Amino acid sequence: MKLSWRKFGIGLGGALTLLAVTGSKAFAQEEGPSSAELAVAIDTMFLLIAGALVFFMQAGFAMLTAGLTQAKNTTNILFKNLMDFVMCSIAFWAVGWGLAYGDSAGGFIGTSQFFLTSAGGDGVPVYVSWFFQVVFAGTAATIVAGAMAERTKFTAYLVYSFIITLFIYPVVVHWVWSGAGWLNTYSGSTDGNWGFTDFAGSTVVHSVGGWAALMGAIILGPRLGRFGSDGKPKSIPGHSMALAALGTFILWLGWFGFNPGSQLAISSQGNADAVALVIVTTNLAAAAGGLGALFTAWFRSGKPDLGQTMNGVLGGLVAITAGCAYVNPISAILIGFLAGPLVVFGAEWLEKAKIDDPVGAVPVHLINGAWGTIAVGLFASAPGNTGTLGLFFGGGATLLMAQVVGIIAIGAWTALLAGAMFLAIKATIGLRVSKEEELSGLDVGEHGSVAYPDFVPGTASVPAAD
Amino acid sequence: MKLSWRKFGIGLGGALTLLAVTGSKAFAQEEGPSSAELAVAIDTMFLLIAGALVFFMQAGFAMLTAGLTQAKNTTNILFKNLMDFVMCSIAFWAVGWGLAYGDSAGGFIGTSQFFLTSAGGDGVPVYVSWFFQVVFAGTAATIVAGAMAERTKFTAYLVYSFIITLFIYPVVVHWVWSGAGWLNTYSGSTDGNWGFTDFAGSTVVHSVGGWAALMGAIILGPRLGRFGSDGKPKSIPGHSMALAALGTFILWLGWFGFNPGSQLAISSQGNADAVALVIVTTNLAAAAGGLGALFTAWFRSGKPDLGQTMNGVLGGLVAITAGCAYVNPISAILIGFLAGPLVVFGAEWLEKAKIDDPVGAVPVHLINGAWGTIAVGLFASAPGNTGTLGLFFGGGATLLMAQVVGIIAIGAWTALLAGAMFLAIKATIGLRVSKEEELSGLDVGEHGSVAYPDFVPGTASVPAAD
Amino acid sequence: MKLSWRKFGIGLGGALTLLAVTGSKAFAQEEGPSSAELAVAIDTMFLLIAGALVFFMQAGFAMLTAGLTQAKNTTNILFKNLMDFVMCSIAFWAVGWGLAYGDSAGGFIGTSQFFLTSAGGDGVPVYVSWFFQVVFAGTAATIVAGAMAERTKFTAYLVYSFIITLFIYPVVVHWVWSGAGWLNTYSGSTDGNWGFTDFAGSTVVHSVGGWAALMGAIILGPRLGRFGSDGKPKSIPGHSMALAALGTFILWLGWFGFNPGSQLAISSQGNADAVALVIVTTNLAAAAGGLGALFTAWFRSGKPDLGQTMNGVLGGLVAITAGCAYVNPISAILIGFLAGPLVVFGAEWLEKAKIDDPVGAVPVHLINGAWGTIAVGLFASAPGNTGTLGLFFGGGATLLMAQVVGIIAIGAWTALLAGAMFLAIKATIGLRVSKEEELSGLDVGEHGSVAYPDFVPGTASVPAAD
Repeated sequence: MKLSWRKFGIGLGGALTLLAVTGSKAFAQEEGPSSAELAVAIDTMFLLIAGALVFFMQAGFAMLTAGLTQAKNTTNILFKNLMDFVMCSIAFWAVGWGLAYGDSAGGFIGTSQFFLTSAGGDGVPVYVSWFFQVVFAGTAATIVAGAMAERTKFTAYLVYSFIITLFIYPVVVHWVWSGAGWLNTYSGSTDGNWGFTDFAGSTVVHSVGGWAALMGAIILGPRLGRFGSDGKPKSIPGHSMALAALGTFILWLGWFGFNPGSQLAISSQGNADAVALVIVTTNLAAAAGGLGALFTAWFRSGKPDLGQTMNGVLGGLVAITAGCAYVNPISAILIGFLAGPLVVFGAEWLEKAKIDDPVGAVPVHLINGAWGTIAVGLFASAPGNTGTLGLFFGGGATLLMAQVVGIIAIGAWTALLAGAMFLAIKATIGLRVSKEEELSGLDVGEHGSVAYPDFVPGTASVPAAD
Repeated sequence: MKLSWRKFGIGLGGALTLLAVTGSKAFAQEEGPSSAELAVAIDTMFLLIAGALVFFMQAGFAMLTAGLTQAKNTTNILFKNLMDFVMCSIAFWAVGWGLAYGDSAGGFIGTSQFFLTSAGGDGVPVYVSWFFQVVFAGTAATIVAGAMAERTKFTAYLVYSFIITLFIYPVVVHWVWSGAGWLNTYSGSTDGNWGFTDFAGSTVVHSVGGWAALMGAIILGPRLGRFGSDGKPKSIPGHSMALAALGTFILWLGWFGFNPGSQLAISSQGNADAVALVIVTTNLAAAAGGLGALFTAWFRSGKPDLGQTMNGVLGGLVAITAGCAYVNPISAILIGFLAGPLVVFGAEWLEKAKIDDPVGAVPVHLINGAWGTIAVGLFASAPGNTGTLGLFFGGGATLLMAQVVGIIAIGAWTALLAGAMFLAIKATIGLRVSKEEELSGLDVGEHGSVAYPDFVPGTASVPAAD
Repeated sequence: MKLSWRKFGIGLGGALTLLAVTGSKAFAQEEGPSSAELAVAIDTMFLLIAGALVFFMQAGFAMLTAGLTQAKNTTNILFKNLMDFVMCSIAFWAVGWGLAYGDSAGGFIGTSQFFLTSAGGDGVPVYVSWFFQVVFAGTAATIVAGAMAERTKFTAYLVYSFIITLFIYPVVVHWVWSGAGWLNTYSGSTDGNWGFTDFAGSTVVHSVGGWAALMGAIILGPRLGRFGSDGKPKSIPGHSMALAALGTFILWLGWFGFNPGSQLAISSQGNADAVALVIVTTNLAAAAGGLGALFTAWFRSGKPDLGQTMNGVLGGLVAITAGCAYVNPISAILIGFLAGPLVVFGAEWLEKAKIDDPVGAVPVHLINGAWGTIAVGLFASAPGNTGTLGLFFGGGATLLMAQVVGIIAIGAWTALLAGAMFLAIKATIGLRVSKEEELSGLDVGEHGSVAYPDFVPGTASVPAAD
């Protein structure tokens, strides 16, 4: 077959290309690779595809955030979303991965594997594991863009996105997912296998992003005009529901990599069963979250609201992320459904506190991240893949306590560090653009251009193209 | 390797996480999972990825439908598309799956497996099969949104989308794909393995959606201004060809999950060969459909028309869906190419009948769904994977007759039930918005907002943001 | 399980469907397919998914190109992007694949396997290999659309896109990837396994597209108003940064199919290791390219520029494509980072030469395609999968020389043929639209419609909908 020839052609005479050719020929001879090698191949492909889906969530966040903010700031917000993953890729390669998965210093921080210099031996390649992890780091980072949108300096945002993926987020990963972290052995259980439970990152990824988003939004202060002189909130509508809806669909799709991929393997009956459960609970929680937000917002405002419903879907997805492998489908629907009102009321609470979160990142990621993590302590029902049960399934409060401790510890760490970082940025290079720039739009002020030059602007503050 | 530690860390002490770790270690010891387990893993991953691609078609339909309709109705149509899959997920979990794949009552309807309470034993997990099926149900449901766009009440649409995925569509699936349905054993063949043949759903999915779309469009009546007082049709152009083109590309991509995934397995040489054939026939029919519509519309109007060409691509994809595993590449090109004129002339026929289908859903999904199903009876040529041949390949009219019977039976079922449902909705909560609301746009009327507040409206009926 | 029933139901009694059912039952009996069959299944799925991701790059190019050009030409540019893959699918099925991978005539051109009439025997199916190749052909073709945007006749573009995928591109593939081509055995090495090295197509795909783009842009001449009467360049901003950013993210995603998939197999430890390396180097080069362009453009203009940064990301991806399997992560960052300034300065060089490339296709694809190919000769460091080393890793200039020869040969072939083709088109059906049509927009002139009829135009040249 020509295709094995292709590798033969482009190869440099190395062992690998010969292996590929030999492998191809072997197919016809009914002598294939070993079962262990096939398992490695399957799991490598699984992480590659799941990671690619999670990467695509960057596009989802970019479209959602751009759609829910004003046309005059579109280039700026897209730029920040793009730079999130650019900075993250470099920071997580150089330092972040090592802090997360390097040899542990007292369960607090990793201390080796910087700059990805060791590629490991047989088994699922370290490189593909890095890829699957870097897209999670990028997710945590990009959550913040929406809450700080329409008023944050571009340079300040670059510094932030580098630091969160270099240090703040990786340390949390080490605590929970490294196998040596203090949080996942917190309770003193003798087998070291009990503790804080967050399957795919309701807290580790989403609440970390959400806490940073909250601190950023507080330290920045609200957008001009967001609260009237009488303190009354005034809605600033986003400029394209089409982009926002596209972003929501892309994020929902990406979650089919985010959660199932977090099983990290599929090459056994047990892994395949777990992955299949995860995809069902993930999808049902998303749908139920949409319903919950739809009904809540409809009841409160008298109209069905697309923005709230989309955030309900996303809130349901965030909430199921911690427990998707541990709960049954009915529990998933309950967890997701409650995410809906949390999104709606969460946004109202923020408004009352005069905190301006243009896209609802805090209700979706922080509040529902916490809710989903607590829900594990309530609904974990061991459908074949967990030993400790939640409160509602006869497990007592042990797991629930561990969840609360983890939420508090990770929240305190992230809020303190992110807060200190944003204050330091504010005191040095500055965190917020000038009043004039905010009014005329960050696209003109920061980048000297506009996102939609061919369209007559709908607000006086969006200038025509030069 | 740290990554196996991660599962160790987040696990709750369950058997599965231990399995994962043991599995990882075993790789190095050259003792992997059994061949049967690996096949389960491969097929599970196959259904997961194919299902995710089909899910993404929801975004494709949303973008296509929004792009081909007016800016003043964008939020509304996106909202309906989002709710399609929300309602479908809940309805197909609670009831739809059981009606489709539960124990058969006389070949007409399934009667067990409601609420997904049984997860099954070894083998490809039931949960991943449910996921692959629910995204098909969502596809059938969302087809209708376009044909009923710009005038249907939001609440009416919610009811519709719940009922079609709860009952109308699942029964058709039971008839054809459950293995116990009356349609796939229709002909009285003794081995019970001859009958109506629809590989991935030209009729089961697309024509069901298309029939419901047709009934909805008829019962609703045309949009205001669509036909002049003299009865002459007047084109109402869509507001964004960029969104429409994006939707088309996403749908084309999604079909690479829709059709290949419908083989349901890839873990043998025969399955891999079938999947590979399917992807080639699918892609060629899409391209040929685009060409067929391009030439037809160009010849009739004197200009190459992007909208018609995109619908030709989609028509080619719908048409090949029934036979993609049974025909050779040249037949696929013929089937796809003829889908092009069917899209163009189908739209003209609808216009003559004064039926208003804003996006061409009926020509694309109903007419080409029927054409593709008949084409199996003509072109099935057993390229390794089918026993019964089409008329043009020496098979006589037996298969062709089965196809016609299936098309009529499923068409009658869907048209009757969907018609009754829309009439019942009309008589109770109402199917169509008020004249005033239609003129000012459903975004303002139904949702109190607009999709693009920052842009000056191009039609007087699109209001500026508050 | 019902799902095996489904195939039973829809099958036509063929061997394959029986196999599928038998296979499913066998899972429970712990007797699965052979290891060789599983390897075929894994590699088939790998090519299917990677190919689907590369297909999706068509959407990425469409969004990027539409976003970076004017609203009055949006329908036209989307149409051309869609037709690229339509024409490519037919041309590469009928002739292109045979010229690329058919029996070699003297290492210059393939001479068999036209019309995909042979499906091959056991092993990875030829059909899935065709699919993986046709999406590469489509990529080469669609690169040209951007450089020739806003002034090329639609019919002329159809002819071009048919010819490049029918003949120009496939011959280059034969030279390099067929295993029998003169270029990959150029140096006279006795084992026939040394030579021009382009893993996934920096030169074979991207520079071929880039050379055709350059010739087209030169022969067309610049857009009206692009250079003032005094010769000074005048920027013509694109109409939607949102579409452009979406396109960039989609392309980045697609590259996770493009490069890893080019290993063509994953079903062994060596293949899995290679794929994992490729995904890391690909991602790091993309990020570094973004940084490189960001800093360069920022330094030169005083403002961070989103368009340049996006092109930097794409340039980094193009540059790593040739060497992604042969270089280590640090080298990947260097290669990608240098792609950034090449994008920025390349665009300046084109401007000085009065060549109008509206989207920067030539700097991204041609210049960085060449740079990436040369970089293999500098940085190839045999991280487990290559025998010959680059100049900086002790390999001497042998490989570097081969790279230069390949770049020149392929560049000369493509520039000559594409140039002759565009001149022939110009002399016959005409290459460029009329001055009036260009000013009023190609959407109205070529297609009699506009892309955004509901929005008031921002330039006098965009008419309102009829």
